[in-house]
Amino acid sequence: MNGAESLVRSLVAAGVDRVFTNPGSTEMEIIKEFDAVPELRPVLGLFEGVCTGAADGYARMTGRPAATLLHVGPGLANGLANLHNAKRAYSPVVNIAGDYPSYHSPHDPLLSADLEGLASAMSGWVRRARSPATLGQDGADAVAAAREGQVATLIVPQDATWGDDATPALPPPEVSRGRAADSEVERIAASIAGDKTAILLVNGSGLSERGLAAANRVVAKTGCRLMVEVFAARMARGAGRGAFGPLPGDQTVALETLGSARSVVLAGTKPPVAYLAYEGLPSLLIPEGVATHHLAGPADDAEGALEALALALDATTPGAAYDNVVPERPTGPVNPKTVGAAIGSLMPDNAIVAAETTTSGGPIFGYTRGAAPHDWLGLTGGSIGMAIPLAVGAAVACPDRKVLCIQSDGGGMYTNQALWTLARESLNVVTVILSNRRYKILEHEYFKTGANTLGAKADRLFDIGNPDIDWAHLGQGMGMEGHRCTEAEDFTAKLEAALATDGPQLIDAVYSG
Amino acid sequence: MNGAESLVRSLVAAGVDRVFTNPGSTEMEIIKEFDAVPELRPVLGLFEGVCTGAADGYARMTGRPAATLLHVGPGLANGLANLHNAKRAYSPVVNIAGDYPSYHSPHDPLLSADLEGLASAMSGWVRRARSPATLGQDGADAVAAAREGQVATLIVPQDATWGDDATPALPPPEVSRGRAADSEVERIAASIAGDKTAILLVNGSGLSERGLAAANRVVAKTGCRLMVEVFAARMARGAGRGAFGPLPGDQTVALETLGSARSVVLAGTKPPVAYLAYEGLPSLLIPEGVATHHLAGPADDAEGALEALALALDATTPGAAYDNVVPERPTGPVNPKTVGAAIGSLMPDNAIVAAETTTSGGPIFGYTRGAAPHDWLGLTGGSIGMAIPLAVGAAVACPDRKVLCIQSDGGGMYTNQALWTLARESLNVVTVILSNRRYKILEHEYFKTGANTLGAKADRLFDIGNPDIDWAHLGQGMGMEGHRCTEAEDFTAKLEAALATDGPQLIDAVYSG
Repeated sequence: MNGAESLVRSLVAAGVDRVFTNPGSTEMEIIKEFDAVPELRPVLGLFEGVCTGAADGYARMTGRPAATLLHVGPGLANGLANLHNAKRAYSPVVNIAGDYPSYHSPHDPLLSADLEGLASAMSGWVRRARSPATLGQDGADAVAAAREGQVATLIVPQDATWGDDATPALPPPEVSRGRAADSEVERIAASIAGDKTAILLVNGSGLSERGLAAANRVVAKTGCRLMVEVFAARMARGAGRGAFGPLPGDQTVALETLGSARSVVLAGTKPPVAYLAYEGLPSLLIPEGVATHHLAGPADDAEGALEALALALDATTPGAAYDNVVPERPTGPVNPKTVGAAIGSLMPDNAIVAAETTTSGGPIFGYTRGAAPHDWLGLTGGSIGMAIPLAVGAAVACPDRKVLCIQSDGGGMYTNQALWTLARESLNVVTVILSNRRYKILEHEYFKTGANTLGAKADRLFDIGNPDIDWAHLGQGMGMEGHRCTEAEDFTAKLEAALATDGPQLIDAVYSG
Repeated sequence: MNGAESLVRSLVAAGVDRVFTNPGSTEMEIIKEFDAVPELRPVLGLFEGVCTGAADGYARMTGRPAATLLHVGPGLANGLANLHNAKRAYSPVVNIAGDYPSYHSPHDPLLSADLEGLASAMSGWVRRARSPATLGQDGADAVAAAREGQVATLIVPQDATWGDDATPALPPPEVSRGRAADSEVERIAASIAGDKTAILLVNGSGLSERGLAAANRVVAKTGCRLMVEVFAARMARGAGRGAFGPLPGDQTVALETLGSARSVVLAGTKPPVAYLAYEGLPSLLIPEGVATHHLAGPADDAEGALEALALALDATTPGAAYDNVVPERPTGPVNPKTVGAAIGSLMPDNAIVAAETTTSGGPIFGYTRGAAPHDWLGLTGGSIGMAIPLAVGAAVACPDRKVLCIQSDGGGMYTNQALWTLARESLNVVTVILSNRRYKILEHEYFKTGANTLGAKADRLFDIGNPDIDWAHLGQGMGMEGHRCTEAEDFTAKLEAALATDGPQLIDAVYSG
């Protein structure tokens, strides 16, 4: 068989059977194999950022990697921003980028570029395939690398897909993720046993239903505080699930909060770093003198680590969980509060929420915590344009669940092409666009620099109205029903109808007061 | 003054007074200076690929760099594909990417990434600013580097925009571009004087009106053949201007053609390399044994070099020029031929054409060569999604000229956000979308691999209909009039009306037979 066939068969044998792709000429032999291997399902994105974001969403919902297939340097470059989010989500992704044949690249043909340089910035593992004979093994190695919770980029020069001496290969069996050894768990348990100042900071797999339940048992037993990082790949939320509060987003408050603890236990995360930097404030949020305990890193088995910690503390009493609090159906203008109330009141059971809410996040997050149980997929790397692609991947991964995509308008424009893939694949996704028609977060940051008044040019750079973007038109233009509303009752009615409809729907929630 | 002010004042002092931007928090001090410096005009793009493509279009029309202002690693990554096109166009671009403060990055905050690695792939010059005191000089150096015909990326960590000891700086005076020395021009002239097999291969500034006129005088004198590279940044075309044919796009034909010459003279280009590679064919298109003469490289003064060559040959007789041949207004279905005829018949005088025509290019190019004189800006790096951003930049550069943007539908989706900037800035751009609803070029390449039939999955990956994209809706959704047509008479009438209207217009030309 040729190299292309060995690669495709290696991927499928390792359980990688979805490929999010926008391919080109150098990937043609691989494309031909898609038709030869029935298990493999390619999904087309009309921009590479759609493909990489979808692979991330797929990974967050299945725990398994999907593949991408991108075309040379520019195609890889277009996929990088959402690979950045996938990297920060510790999502397993097998990111495949085709390239010119190895003998052709040294002549610097038109599309050639330094793929290693591009890929390295957003990947934990990068390899360039050398020959058809080893391409199958390269594919298996990429899967193994991705399974460690990272983006594994395999660069495939076209001549590696040719030949006739290729063979498929299998990755080694999956191993379970690491965590602190039992003796270290015992030590941490002893250290926080009588310490009500301690903070349990959770992210990663610690945000699963079991992980949060265990964390809340620890809280019930020791009186410590449970906090969750805001930039999280996936959280189990809703009525009956473990309660939690966020690590404060304001840097000064976060420093004070963490500084009030004698010790911080990290479960599924590294020591927290300020998202943005301000003159005179430190980068690390845990002040010196506060003990830091490493229960599990970001890609580790934080769920198992929290259960082990609860066990070590003999913490068997169920801790705090969210009551089933469904907000009233809202009235008045569309704004973050009424959108949040509408979503909270209508949340489908076992929904997946793909959310990039930027400055609207607080009320929407708050109004949904007592809603029907759901998984909440958040912005992980700060790179906007993530939610609609993520929804694509989540819906491909979980065809039997309803996906609710909540996307700020500014970020939504970055990867609006993902709407087309929702329509192409008839995915069960309701997309709500939060149209405040402003890069409002930038206005906040502007005033944080000490400015008293907003300059006219700056104002115009933060304004993404003038002209207003009509998202209903954009949705319709890409093949789905699109709606627009400015009143909360109308929004709620349209959301209810959209959630009751199969296939993709879009609602433009235009803030009106 | 602080670093930000010194940077902005250095740019303006060097004549860089347009900034295409999608900024973020780390660029806030620079944004504040936009309001303090009246000469500077920022233009907002809702995706970074819009900004970088616009800077390229601006440079192609003015010969001077515009600046970009992008936000950290993901923002830079989103701009890379059109920087790749700018790099291959040898366009001067001052590409500015903000980054976290230098003391913050080592802690790997959420948005941090290897900006040097990203930028190097698509830039000729990369520097990271070190302090406020030197940021003004960094800006001046970036302008000087860009003027050499390259993308100059200046990475600006946030703390370099702070401080109070900064000073603006000026780049050295512009120097004229290089070319072969007069003695070498004499030698080349003597070498091709009696050689009707010789090929004059032109690109870069050799495609100006004067360059092509000089090239045609050489042809008239010596009987040599004039050929132009298909991937060209800017060509002077239309009635009365120098005639030319393309270097054949088919690799086998190109090899035969160039192999039939005793010598090839390169004016504004390097020895040509095959765009794509096929098994068994060489990468370099000029066969061994054919003499290669270097009159001017891609960023050199090819126009001056061609005039010097004509002078050395005493070639004073005017050569071939295009007659004023305006096609009949077409009837029948919309397809590349009728679109080409309509454009040829209605081409405004002194128009700028920003074109990414992919598989529709041949007829459209052919029907417009005898039309009213115009500048044709082409796809340079093979990275799709270029034409609409390029049109933004060209229209900002030349507000008194009509811009006609001809964009294939597949590529258009990549950077459709550029439509919004056309509307925001009320730019005089008529955008024609070539909707064949297919990645037709990929289908061509598929069959070139030896496949006899198109597999069902491959077919679906090349099909960008199902659902059809309604570009009129997309245009309307982003604030401009959008039209759709399937009949040539209707298309011609709508194009005529659009060209007579101020401000942006969009016409979706849906192929119907």
